[in-house]
Amino acid sequence: MTPTKDPWELPDVSGLTVGVLGGTGDQGRGLAYRLARAGQPVIVGSRAAERAEAAAAELGHGVRGLDNAGCARESDVVIVAVPWEGHARTLEALREELAGKLVVDCVNPLGFDKRGAYALVPEEGSAAQQAAALLPGARVTAAFHHLSAVLLQDPAVEKIDTDVMVLGESRADCELVQALAARIPGMRGVYAGRLRNAHQVEALVANLISVNRRYHAHAGVRLTDI
Amino acid sequence: MTPTKDPWELPDVSGLTVGVLGGTGDQGRGLAYRLARAGQPVIVGSRAAERAEAAAAELGHGVRGLDNAGCARESDVVIVAVPWEGHARTLEALREELAGKLVVDCVNPLGFDKRGAYALVPEEGSAAQQAAALLPGARVTAAFHHLSAVLLQDPAVEKIDTDVMVLGESRADCELVQALAARIPGMRGVYAGRLRNAHQVEALVANLISVNRRYHAHAGVRLTDI
Repeated sequence: MTPTKDPWELPDVSGLTVGVLGGTGDQGRGLAYRLARAGQPVIVGSRAAERAEAAAAELGHGVRGLDNAGCARESDVVIVAVPWEGHARTLEALREELAGKLVVDCVNPLGFDKRGAYALVPEEGSAAQQAAALLPGARVTAAFHHLSAVLLQDPAVEKIDTDVMVLGESRADCELVQALAARIPGMRGVYAGRLRNAHQVEALVANLISVNRRYHAHAGVRLTDI
Repeated sequence: MTPTKDPWELPDVSGLTVGVLGGTGDQGRGLAYRLARAGQPVIVGSRAAERAEAAAAELGHGVRGLDNAGCARESDVVIVAVPWEGHARTLEALREELAGKLVVDCVNPLGFDKRGAYALVPEEGSAAQQAAALLPGARVTAAFHHLSAVLLQDPAVEKIDTDVMVLGESRADCELVQALAARIPGMRGVYAGRLRNAHQVEALVANLISVNRRYHAHAGVRLTDI
């Protein structure tokens, strides 16, 4: 880590295969679509291989579909986009396949009631910290929390004007994820702290849901002055 | 509350007197300066009236200085910008003066160690919820968390390009605070949810501190698509 390094100088990640666990859900499907459309090799994972294959065929752009274990095994970078309810169970079952992989958790633990969305607080502090606790052999980061699944999946949307906050313990790993985010037109990947500060980034989605309701929007986040 | 109302149609707040508790600290002084410069009647409050008067004289633009109780009593809107450590004590002592007032909490409960800043979790959930618990007679909102005290206080900075996330239980109260934020050139006041979702907005400052270190910036937040 050289503190004088230009923080916008990011590695070339165009050759890395990106797996998306929960790739048949709205968020996972949207991320897979955007990355594949940007030229990234992408595999969507699902509990059932057939569902993953069907989603892959729909997504096009060379996306492949495998069951979660195959997806994890064949990918360099693995995005975790499963529902919060299945987060711990899914990761525990993939501990071996995810060893040594760069894992990107984008799960937002939220509850909903008639007053809207609210943040849940995982015992470990955040979904990302839960992933790090469950996957001692993986390189866990957190990113891609604030993206609208609607915009991600809409083929008519050319650019997604937003920043992706990237959290993690290793600068090199964060920079890989930042570079991945930057492949999607309109997006920047911005380093935004260590995993112990992931909870508020995950939980901010509850606020974006309030913004979306009030302003009839698909709100995202931009950081200013950078 | 009329759900079809244009969310950008905000009340005229130019005649309201704004008090800033903790108005001699960096954040409080910065907010007082920006609001007064925009033409708002402003009173800075401090434990010691002389310190408030000295800060007011330095700030100019018609700012007045009073002790905290006087500041609370003579203001319509009271911004709480005290250090987290003094938050509960300060508010408890002003329960009577703040009854009926519109209170805007902008306090970020943070801890610091050699790895940087991290979020503290108040027993009530957030600083804003602590204020609401301590001030049953006041109208408590939360806002102005993500502003750089450096930019706020720099007279050479004409515009502060950022959004102010406003949280609260009453739409009318939130709109008053949104209108107040909008008086400062470059700022928008955006409704961002109920007080139960204030913690992550407060805590996000820990992430902005990481961003500032990495990018040598005074980062703020803009919401996109609104």
